[in-house]
Amino acid sequence: MDAAEFRRRGKEMVDYVADYLENIEKRQVYPDVEPGYLRSLIPEEAPLEAESYEDVVKDIERVIMPGVTHWHSPYFYAYFPTAHSFPAMLADMLCGAIGCIGFSWGTASEATLIALLAARSKIVKLIQTDHPDRSETDIISKLVAYSSDQAHSSVERAGLIGGVRMKKIPTDSKFSVRGAALQKVLEEDRAAGLIPFFFCATLGTTPSCAFDCITELGPICNAEKIWMHIDAAYAGSAFICPEFRPLLNGIEFADSFNFNPHKWLLVNFDCSAMWVKKRSDIIGAFKIEPLYLKHDHQESGNQSHWQIPLGRRFRSLKMWFVFRMYGLKGLQAYIRKHVGLAKEFESLVKADQRFEISADVVLGLVCFRLKGSNELNEILLKRINSARKIHLVPCQLAGKFVLRFAVCARTTESRHVREAWSHISHLASELLQELRH
Amino acid sequence: MDAAEFRRRGKEMVDYVADYLENIEKRQVYPDVEPGYLRSLIPEEAPLEAESYEDVVKDIERVIMPGVTHWHSPYFYAYFPTAHSFPAMLADMLCGAIGCIGFSWGTASEATLIALLAARSKIVKLIQTDHPDRSETDIISKLVAYSSDQAHSSVERAGLIGGVRMKKIPTDSKFSVRGAALQKVLEEDRAAGLIPFFFCATLGTTPSCAFDCITELGPICNAEKIWMHIDAAYAGSAFICPEFRPLLNGIEFADSFNFNPHKWLLVNFDCSAMWVKKRSDIIGAFKIEPLYLKHDHQESGNQSHWQIPLGRRFRSLKMWFVFRMYGLKGLQAYIRKHVGLAKEFESLVKADQRFEISADVVLGLVCFRLKGSNELNEILLKRINSARKIHLVPCQLAGKFVLRFAVCARTTESRHVREAWSHISHLASELLQELRH
Repeated sequence: MDAAEFRRRGKEMVDYVADYLENIEKRQVYPDVEPGYLRSLIPEEAPLEAESYEDVVKDIERVIMPGVTHWHSPYFYAYFPTAHSFPAMLADMLCGAIGCIGFSWGTASEATLIALLAARSKIVKLIQTDHPDRSETDIISKLVAYSSDQAHSSVERAGLIGGVRMKKIPTDSKFSVRGAALQKVLEEDRAAGLIPFFFCATLGTTPSCAFDCITELGPICNAEKIWMHIDAAYAGSAFICPEFRPLLNGIEFADSFNFNPHKWLLVNFDCSAMWVKKRSDIIGAFKIEPLYLKHDHQESGNQSHWQIPLGRRFRSLKMWFVFRMYGLKGLQAYIRKHVGLAKEFESLVKADQRFEISADVVLGLVCFRLKGSNELNEILLKRINSARKIHLVPCQLAGKFVLRFAVCARTTESRHVREAWSHISHLASELLQELRH
Repeated sequence: MDAAEFRRRGKEMVDYVADYLENIEKRQVYPDVEPGYLRSLIPEEAPLEAESYEDVVKDIERVIMPGVTHWHSPYFYAYFPTAHSFPAMLADMLCGAIGCIGFSWGTASEATLIALLAARSKIVKLIQTDHPDRSETDIISKLVAYSSDQAHSSVERAGLIGGVRMKKIPTDSKFSVRGAALQKVLEEDRAAGLIPFFFCATLGTTPSCAFDCITELGPICNAEKIWMHIDAAYAGSAFICPEFRPLLNGIEFADSFNFNPHKWLLVNFDCSAMWVKKRSDIIGAFKIEPLYLKHDHQESGNQSHWQIPLGRRFRSLKMWFVFRMYGLKGLQAYIRKHVGLAKEFESLVKADQRFEISADVVLGLVCFRLKGSNELNEILLKRINSARKIHLVPCQLAGKFVLRFAVCARTTESRHVREAWSHISHLASELLQELRH
């Protein structure tokens, strides 16, 4: 769907929304269906080929609406109100178009925290089974969680919030955590009387898109009863392409897995998908059930028990639109195009002797720098961002100040990448020239 | 704005969005402005009178766009991608129209948790200043937090997640926590060696919209160095009407305050507003700063340090549209209309000798029941909800099973309320008749 078609479809949707709201009181306020009704109405798998928008729209009344509780019907008097107005909807359209992340990306953060809290609750119960006399606070005070020294800052924050020790495992020359590095720390910590309980592996780190070696780490975690959570916030989307699936080897050892379709799968912010191997682990950690939330299908999937807020927006709707309108093939093509553009940028950098590549380019991220001091690269980055033509952020890799070139926009083409490179190269020439004089 | 105007404005917005995205590469990718640039461009206060939509739209380019980082520009290569597609935007329009809360309302939950974690971090630092030898885990194991026995389930969950004791303070005959009740528990707990540190007061409880007596509770909390958080998730919106402001007396003692504009202020889900008296208390609890998030305005308001996820959607945009399009007067009229409808329903119930009112009707919620057993009321509720004409949920008040009639929809009119009552009354007659035979 291009902008021209969006003009047409958007206007149709505006009419559909207005019709829906003008006639909402004619609809039955509360659905008749049983949980699970959707299963027979939708295919088992996301479509391979893109579908037509007409087919998607037809399914709104056939598939979605029969399951909707019409919160904005004047016959709805349950709970408390949830606000709704035309101006707010207009603003949300604009908000979706701008699609900015204020201040940065997130919500994989919440998944990490949830996994850590579930793991904490599980280990406490496990230890108390053998030692009923040990208090929860005593056990928590001995717990220790681990992540890569390249892990996202939200992992450290999860430890802080959960009130547990969090240790960083050193990475190898590819910025990956290896089994031996984890094993060494585990032995030291067990010897010191600590209780290892959680390891957050990263597939696609934020600084350099490095992959922790989960084929080595997974068996260790499973043997030591350590919950292995996988944060694949960015890279997770790429696993829809068979050629990237080997990066996912070892996934069978994971207790939980998270990725953000809102990063690289064309689903507008926010939409973060979390998978948990054993549902009861996570429900047990959060469940509290007042009368006003009791209903007839308690056990069949009240996801309020899976997270910190009770409420969640209807995010799956946009995922469903996107999967159908692009099809697996369209989404794969999109991922491959971005990876191709990153490779193109990489070869432009490699062809310039003044620059070096700082980490393997596996997906859509290129880490590069001018050969030379960190100060030099800091100045270069400052000039790039001050010029306001393109926007980059830095990272630190093995003590070096490195520039990150992440292919981001849906509309980025080869010409934009080449233009960006020629701009960077020009600013570098100016800078090096000045320094020579 | 009615549905007819939304049809027109929605289509204009679709064109604006399409134009924006078709021409995004012509815009400067990263803004020139300094933090604070907005202050001089917008009025100090929300408008009293509704503004015209044209005026709001004019301000998009004048006020908003100069501050936007265009994440979807093909010249944006920072961080990682944030997804964006036309189908996802169409789905979000529909999602906004349906505006359902799956499964229930929330995000005040997150505010409570954040406040509790900030309070936990503050008390630990405070105690460690005097006793540098006491470990964090030792202190946390002695902490105790409090809330009303009527508080929302999320308060209990916050205690669970924060790993601290959470005690419920008994309420009086109006379902309010009073100063003496808190004082009594505090004395017992101090005597037992515990450390009281957090009290979550509720203004407008979920079961019956009761108000904790913060004029009594606030001075106790302040004197005892207990963080007082106020959860006004539903009732908070009503405080824009002067006649409801007395319910807010004692607010000056609060350390933090939260309400949900997405409940009762016409801003679509989700949008929860939190205020904290001392900013450094909350920043200190969460701050972690990797290089890829460093920027030139570190201290001027990076709100990533104020919450669990790093990222947040651009929610203020819909608030801004709503405030301007309704004006204070329009929003006040909306609140008053709902309260009036609740009063109307209350008088219908009161006129029927078979029923009783179970709690004072202060805002838009009426708690009522058939005089008689809990079983009788459970059957009545079951029949009401099975008929699918209206939708209600129950609550428990002083051991009684009670029906909650919450005025919810923006479009609810007197005729809907009267129709709902005649439906309930009819089902009650049928039920009582059957029991007589």
